[in-house]
Amino acid sequence: MTAVNEFLAELASDSPTPGGGSVAALSGALGAALCSMVCNLTIGKKKYVDVEEDLKRVLVETERLRLELNQLIDEDAAAFDKVMTAMKLPKETDDEKAAREAALQDSLVDAASIPLVVMGKCVEVVELSATVAEKGNVNAVSDAGVAALNGRAGVHAARLNVLINLGGIRAERHALFVEEARAAMNEMVERADRLAKQAMATVLEKVS
Amino acid sequence: MTAVNEFLAELASDSPTPGGGSVAALSGALGAALCSMVCNLTIGKKKYVDVEEDLKRVLVETERLRLELNQLIDEDAAAFDKVMTAMKLPKETDDEKAAREAALQDSLVDAASIPLVVMGKCVEVVELSATVAEKGNVNAVSDAGVAALNGRAGVHAARLNVLINLGGIRAERHALFVEEARAAMNEMVERADRLAKQAMATVLEKVS
Repeated sequence: MTAVNEFLAELASDSPTPGGGSVAALSGALGAALCSMVCNLTIGKKKYVDVEEDLKRVLVETERLRLELNQLIDEDAAAFDKVMTAMKLPKETDDEKAAREAALQDSLVDAASIPLVVMGKCVEVVELSATVAEKGNVNAVSDAGVAALNGRAGVHAARLNVLINLGGIRAERHALFVEEARAAMNEMVERADRLAKQAMATVLEKVS
Repeated sequence: MTAVNEFLAELASDSPTPGGGSVAALSGALGAALCSMVCNLTIGKKKYVDVEEDLKRVLVETERLRLELNQLIDEDAAAFDKVMTAMKLPKETDDEKAAREAALQDSLVDAASIPLVVMGKCVEVVELSATVAEKGNVNAVSDAGVAALNGRAGVHAARLNVLINLGGIRAERHALFVEEARAAMNEMVERADRLAKQAMATVLEKVS
C-alpha cells in the first residue's frame, strides 16, 4: 500500500539529499493531503450541508498546496545539489577562487529561497487545518489535528534549512535578502504557532 | 526520485485510511531516517572519530525505528479498517447488537494500541535526535533538528489517534486499558516536548 519505504531508505543513506529540506516540504504536503481527506469525508454529507461550500473552497486550496509542496520536495534537493556542485569548483588560482565564491553565494541564496517558499506554504496548511478542524466531519477531526501538527513541523523544519544556508551567505550583494528572509521567518513562525495552537484546541475539545 | 506522490494522493482521497494515524508513524519514520542520515554523514570522518562508536550505536537504533515505524504506517490503517468492519456488522436483533458492540469495543482497543506504540517509538526518535544534534556532523545539524521536529509531531499526532479511539470505548472490561493509556500518554508527551526543546536549542545554537 505505502510506497514510502524507498523514500525513507534514500533519506537514511549517506547522501545529503534528500535531507531535512525535502522532509520539511513533505511534512507540509502530508498536512495538506490530510486537510483534503477531511474535506472529502465532509462534502456531500447531509449533516454538513451548511459548510459544504466553505470546504469545497478549502479543498481547492489544499489540493493546490499538496501538489506544490510535493514538487518542492525535489526542488529542495536540486537546490542543495547546486551548493555541493559549487563547493567542488576548482580553487587554485585567484580567479578560480573568486568564481567559486560567486557561484557558492548565489547557490546558497537559491538553497535558502526554496525552504522560505516551503515555510509560506506550510503556514497556509496550518491556517486551513484550523478551518477544517472547526467545520469538517467530526469523525475525522483527529486528522485535521495531525494536519496542523505537520504544517507546523514543516514551518519549523523549513526554517532550520533557511538558517543553515543563510549562515553561509557573506556576499554584500545578498545582505538585503538575508535581512528580509529573517524578518519574514519571524512573522511566519509566530503565525504558524498561533494558528496551530488554535487548531489543536479545537481538535482536543472535540476528541475528548 | 521521490516515490511519495502516490501515498500523498491516497491520503488526500475520501477513503479514511491511510489517515492521521499512518501519518503519525510516517513522521516518526522520517525523523528516524534523518537521524540515520546524520550518523552516516559522521561515521568514518576524521574530525568525528571521538563520537564514532556512540553514533554507530545510535545508527543501529534509528535504523530499527525507521523499519518498525515504516511497518506501523500500514498496521495503523489495518487496525482502523477493523473498526469500520465492526461498525458495519448487523444490528437488528439483541444478539446481533451485543455481538457488534463486543467486536467494536475490541477493535477500538486495537486501534488505540497501535498509535500508543507509535508514540513510544516517536519519543525514542526525539531522544536520539538530541544525541545526533549534539554529536553528529555539524554540517547536517539542521537535519537533526528536522528529525526532532518530526519525532515530536509524531508523538502528538499519535496521541490524537489514541484519544479519538479511546473516546469510543465504553466496555467495563477495557476500563483499566483506558486509564493506563491516558497515564502513559501524559508521560510520553512531557518527555518528548522536553527532549525536542533540548534538541532544538542545540541545533539553533549551531546553525546561527
